[in-house]
Amino acid sequence: MICVLTGGTGGAKFVDGLRQVVPAEEITMVVNTGDDLLWWGLYVSPDIDSITYVLSGLLSRERGWGVKGDTFLCLQAMGQLGEPTWFHTGDRDLAVHLLRSRLMAEGKTLSEATSAICDKLSVKARILPMSDSRVETRVDTPSGELSFEEYFVQRWYQDPVNSVRFAGATDAEAAPGVIEAILSADAVVIAPSNPVTSIGPILAVPGIREALSRARGKVAAVSPIVGNAPVAGPAGILMTAQGLSCSIAGVAKAYEDFLDLLVCDTRDARAAEVLRKNGLRVQCAQTIMRSSDDRAALARTVLSHTIRGLRSDEPDSEKPATRAAADQP
Amino acid sequence: MICVLTGGTGGAKFVDGLRQVVPAEEITMVVNTGDDLLWWGLYVSPDIDSITYVLSGLLSRERGWGVKGDTFLCLQAMGQLGEPTWFHTGDRDLAVHLLRSRLMAEGKTLSEATSAICDKLSVKARILPMSDSRVETRVDTPSGELSFEEYFVQRWYQDPVNSVRFAGATDAEAAPGVIEAILSADAVVIAPSNPVTSIGPILAVPGIREALSRARGKVAAVSPIVGNAPVAGPAGILMTAQGLSCSIAGVAKAYEDFLDLLVCDTRDARAAEVLRKNGLRVQCAQTIMRSSDDRAALARTVLSHTIRGLRSDEPDSEKPATRAAADQP
Repeated sequence: MICVLTGGTGGAKFVDGLRQVVPAEEITMVVNTGDDLLWWGLYVSPDIDSITYVLSGLLSRERGWGVKGDTFLCLQAMGQLGEPTWFHTGDRDLAVHLLRSRLMAEGKTLSEATSAICDKLSVKARILPMSDSRVETRVDTPSGELSFEEYFVQRWYQDPVNSVRFAGATDAEAAPGVIEAILSADAVVIAPSNPVTSIGPILAVPGIREALSRARGKVAAVSPIVGNAPVAGPAGILMTAQGLSCSIAGVAKAYEDFLDLLVCDTRDARAAEVLRKNGLRVQCAQTIMRSSDDRAALARTVLSHTIRGLRSDEPDSEKPATRAAADQP
Repeated sequence: MICVLTGGTGGAKFVDGLRQVVPAEEITMVVNTGDDLLWWGLYVSPDIDSITYVLSGLLSRERGWGVKGDTFLCLQAMGQLGEPTWFHTGDRDLAVHLLRSRLMAEGKTLSEATSAICDKLSVKARILPMSDSRVETRVDTPSGELSFEEYFVQRWYQDPVNSVRFAGATDAEAAPGVIEAILSADAVVIAPSNPVTSIGPILAVPGIREALSRARGKVAAVSPIVGNAPVAGPAGILMTAQGLSCSIAGVAKAYEDFLDLLVCDTRDARAAEVLRKNGLRVQCAQTIMRSSDDRAALARTVLSHTIRGLRSDEPDSEKPATRAAADQP
């Protein structure tokens, strides 16, 4: 069993590779819900949607979000009604938001609604929201505090960022199955997602960081940073705002209390050497996922270095010194 | 000021004619909400929608409901999610349901939501739901009790009908402005709508029948029955179930306590003569509205016989004997 912590488009791409090399039944995703928003009165969970669409084959690969071949006529009509249109929900995409919202209005949790939608779309992998409580990523900017989607989608991440917080996290509980999935997985993989606003909210849920430290399997992370720039999106700005360098060292730092292996791009070979000297196991690979084959290859590389019995380019080694090892067998 | 009681596609067609011959600002519609339904968790008000779309120029004339040129991709996607698809909401059409549902979830009444949507669509006429309380048309059939839309849309009105009731009507109140609009109008027109399930729910709201009896202006009805058959839909079956003959006599009977003038089709000249002998004023006209011109002509005819000062084919006369005249000036 593989457990993946994921959010954003980088995470969705990685999961698209993973599903090509591991039976779907053997994957559990723990997904960021810090971006969730009420949109036109509907409960929208962008990262859960992207992962659901990837795994059901519905994701638009061109856009990296939403449903392939979707149209936007309802959006257009909402604009004519004077409603906001900056968050682009397609006509087909709306179906998932409508069903989830109805189920939640009927008293179902986000976990239950997610599971029901996955069943309907024949998604065999298990998709778990990080929490059934509302945890909201809030981005503090000179223009005021914004929700993540306001910052990212509405304002094109052009605002300087003072800091990021996860409102509601302190009182949140991990969703049913999350802690167990992390603890019992043969490997835990942190997708090449933004460490601050995609993985950060997950780690802010009480109990999840500790579970990662106590996990039975190795914990690997794929860096979303190559050189000194994110592969996509505002990860660099957000990492800097949170006191992390925009580099693979910053990524390693974000996960330092539980990370066994960092997978970084081959272009970061020199920076990798520095991290290795500090005791972290680092594997260089082709991390830019342009094609479907790239995605599968990256997933295969990550797994080969975390799970015994899979083809491996280098022999598996002991957990590195940075790993909190107190509870290990 | 003209007040129109309306529901269904016949009502929408009539209103389409009326808006061609009277300034929109001078029309108040009192609309059936007995067909309203929760669909995919959204509050849908089919008759209010049809009238709103007619008056904003958005109605699909081909279908007689929904938005012209609309697509149905969300519906298709809902089907793939295993959700019911028998009620056809188009992608553009969804925008109105989404906005109304959000406004009502925020505590707005149906009247307020309707008014807000009309403002956004620049509808100048006043559209009033018959009531802000939930009144549900329930059709009792051998297969059990059905909502009107289940009976009409889902099951194609193929079930025999035992009876019709309006659940919630006893405790309902007319929406703000309804009683005043009826009492003060220069003319009240009952559109060629199904007397049982389009106009019946309106008349079942306490106070509305009485207001029609006490109205200052004349009350005219356009018959939706020609000969012994409805122009469209299940009006015949439903009238029979309610003990009314499927004829202009049945229509006159449904409205007998307040009707001043019945406008029926020229093909009913002989039946009209019988009604006249019983003291009802009856005007024959071309009531089948095939073209936009037909609609305008019918509206013009109805108004010419109800309002002084408009062109009239026959001189205006006193209220007939059937009119409850106790409260008249």
